[in-house]
Amino acid sequence: MTQKSKSLNKQQNNTSLKGASRRSFLKKAAAYSVSAITAANILAPVKIKADDEAITQPAVWGGKLGDLVDKYKYGVPSPYEHNNIRRVHDLLSSGDRYATVSMTPLHQQEGIITPNGLFFNRSHSGVAHVDPYKFRLMIHGLVEKPLVLTLSELKRYPSQSRIHFIECPANGSTGWRGPQFNNLQFIKGMMGCAEWTGVRLKTVLDDLGLKPNAKWMLAEGSDNSEMARTIPIEKALDDAMLVWGQNGEPLRPEQGYPVRLLLPGWEGNLNVKWLKRLEFSDKPWHSKEETSKYTMLQPNGKGINFFWPMEVNSIITSPCPEVPWTDLNIGDKVEISGVAWSGRGTIKNVDISLDGGNNWREARLKGLVLAKAWTRFSFITVWDGKTKVMLSRAIDDSGHIQPTIDKLIENVGVEGIYHRNPIVGWEVNAKGEVNNVHVRS
Amino acid sequence: MTQKSKSLNKQQNNTSLKGASRRSFLKKAAAYSVSAITAANILAPVKIKADDEAITQPAVWGGKLGDLVDKYKYGVPSPYEHNNIRRVHDLLSSGDRYATVSMTPLHQQEGIITPNGLFFNRSHSGVAHVDPYKFRLMIHGLVEKPLVLTLSELKRYPSQSRIHFIECPANGSTGWRGPQFNNLQFIKGMMGCAEWTGVRLKTVLDDLGLKPNAKWMLAEGSDNSEMARTIPIEKALDDAMLVWGQNGEPLRPEQGYPVRLLLPGWEGNLNVKWLKRLEFSDKPWHSKEETSKYTMLQPNGKGINFFWPMEVNSIITSPCPEVPWTDLNIGDKVEISGVAWSGRGTIKNVDISLDGGNNWREARLKGLVLAKAWTRFSFITVWDGKTKVMLSRAIDDSGHIQPTIDKLIENVGVEGIYHRNPIVGWEVNAKGEVNNVHVRS
Repeated sequence: MTQKSKSLNKQQNNTSLKGASRRSFLKKAAAYSVSAITAANILAPVKIKADDEAITQPAVWGGKLGDLVDKYKYGVPSPYEHNNIRRVHDLLSSGDRYATVSMTPLHQQEGIITPNGLFFNRSHSGVAHVDPYKFRLMIHGLVEKPLVLTLSELKRYPSQSRIHFIECPANGSTGWRGPQFNNLQFIKGMMGCAEWTGVRLKTVLDDLGLKPNAKWMLAEGSDNSEMARTIPIEKALDDAMLVWGQNGEPLRPEQGYPVRLLLPGWEGNLNVKWLKRLEFSDKPWHSKEETSKYTMLQPNGKGINFFWPMEVNSIITSPCPEVPWTDLNIGDKVEISGVAWSGRGTIKNVDISLDGGNNWREARLKGLVLAKAWTRFSFITVWDGKTKVMLSRAIDDSGHIQPTIDKLIENVGVEGIYHRNPIVGWEVNAKGEVNNVHVRS
Repeated sequence: MTQKSKSLNKQQNNTSLKGASRRSFLKKAAAYSVSAITAANILAPVKIKADDEAITQPAVWGGKLGDLVDKYKYGVPSPYEHNNIRRVHDLLSSGDRYATVSMTPLHQQEGIITPNGLFFNRSHSGVAHVDPYKFRLMIHGLVEKPLVLTLSELKRYPSQSRIHFIECPANGSTGWRGPQFNNLQFIKGMMGCAEWTGVRLKTVLDDLGLKPNAKWMLAEGSDNSEMARTIPIEKALDDAMLVWGQNGEPLRPEQGYPVRLLLPGWEGNLNVKWLKRLEFSDKPWHSKEETSKYTMLQPNGKGINFFWPMEVNSIITSPCPEVPWTDLNIGDKVEISGVAWSGRGTIKNVDISLDGGNNWREARLKGLVLAKAWTRFSFITVWDGKTKVMLSRAIDDSGHIQPTIDKLIENVGVEGIYHRNPIVGWEVNAKGEVNNVHVRS
């Protein structure tokens, strides 16, 4: 364990600034002296509701006592951060606000943990509410001992906690034929990454005893749509989990409270929320959500029925349309940073191009690098005030590499809207404004 | 990076059940058939307010549509989890509810990430509110280029994200001379563990240029108490950070919004919240909080002035007084689990005793094992229905081992209330009820 911990802690500590010279990040800030503070370059003011209690009780610079500590039984964000929220866009919905998705504000996301309040929320029939005292999980079909578990019985199993992303296969589906949203949140916000706690499904199935002909598992939710998906037995026995915890506390209602299935790295909708039933069979079910939806029409006119792992992918989150470089001076050193992930394994490296893909240089991976989890990358450059097209390209340890749009179209055609992982382009213009552009080859 | 990732992912995957035989966890559950669900062994019902919107709109078993997705701009826990909150106890306060601490509900905590809404909150003069647009951080004293930074200037530095615990040095201070609280939350709840995002302090200081005689740093908060502590320059240049993010979003008000100091592994109060000023000098300041408080009276009558790193420590979180074994049958296999941590390095191993310290066996470390972060441990046993005294003992890679109470008293006497890390005893009686007991040697 010591051996592992040493390399791991070294990895967490991997924060040296390769290529960044001393003093370079403070070119502008250093112009201030202690006695000459100006208001320049601070963030644009936000509007705050006048009746917000926290705002009407300021304690800036220690002038008065703050709030009573016991007011904060369960804390909430600062009212100044009221713009850091999930957002819904009608173009991304299935026709109403029950069957739609609210998207993670990736441009304001730090690190690799998405807070529960901001984790994207895709529902097929609204956010269901399940009474944990009435909750039952039925496990039946080709098992030796079918049973029904209560929540306390399920939690009696030894737990494990693992950090994994969940991504909707439609993430990035809009605008990949041409720029549609000029906004990171709507381009890539159908995902989040969290520490999940639950029991490994294999542990439960070992107790039940799978029959030898059990080759497929149906997972069914208790929401109004009865969301149901077929999962091959190999995944159920590999790293699948029945999870009740997210980031240290019970699942939130919109994440499937009290129990959801977790299939690390696989399509979001397979991670069935408000789980009520697991059935085992020798054949797949061909449920509504894997025939009418979540299939991939190919150039030859045939659809791919099952299409499970999310592809290797990456996106630059700073700068982006919401986080421009408009306050930089020419000559300032600046960090380009973003997030990479793959449902097939661990991120091996990320390359950055500043000229639309003609030249590539390797970014530094920073912080923890975990399988089927977000991985942060960093690249230090100097702002020269010239228009440039910025790209990131991820490679995972399964040998997959993020494709250009042309390469992707060549492989899977233009009809499908799922599993779109092309390289995304940000054009940074001379003013430092950032716009989504398509880089074809 | 691949090498590191492999061992790291193996570590995250380290979830095999050594010593647990097949079917053993379901002895009771397997007695249910699909058609004979009983209400036995479910959790005790909680009282829910009748006017709670989520409760009056149930969608159990898919009977009707759930909530509109866009209702959840920033999510909150399920109303069924209304008991999962921070709590304040008057015995642990400094006389009022401004200078007090609210404690993390460790018995309901999963994994190694404490959600921001539940992270313990120690304030010396209430929860301060700082306007991020008026925020300034002054850095002066023995530096070549003193300056004042706005928040946007600070965030221009390259960021890093790291998982670390923060613990109040008074954690465990109550009742270590004799059982005082029969409750995990009040015995050990003055701590949490989170992913922190910010800039390494050394990066900023490299820009400013420290003078050679700068040996100490004063960190001062903008709260009403003007919380101020002296930090040796070695720590400031090692792993100290100026952090603005916690678990993927901006710091919460009660954690020092918009910026706090992070000194990984060191006393909680040194991690100054609502930070406004860093000053460098050749001498320590001997501030109020390091002379009248946060010192350690020794048996010889002298006090230890500076006492920074938190000691190697561990606690069994399941079972505990709030999570008893009252629903187990004799013969059931069951997991003993808990959390270990050290401010001096990485947890190397945790031992478990079931007989008050006469015999010890090694627990399994599960999930990520990171320096100066919570580490989860697990030990599978069989419930025999006999009274037993359960202990955990952590050892870190600096060679420190968690002491018995007698050993601790021998070393530091009985007057001090800080840095108390003795082995904690849970007596599990024949009914499965859990009580805090003292095991002296």
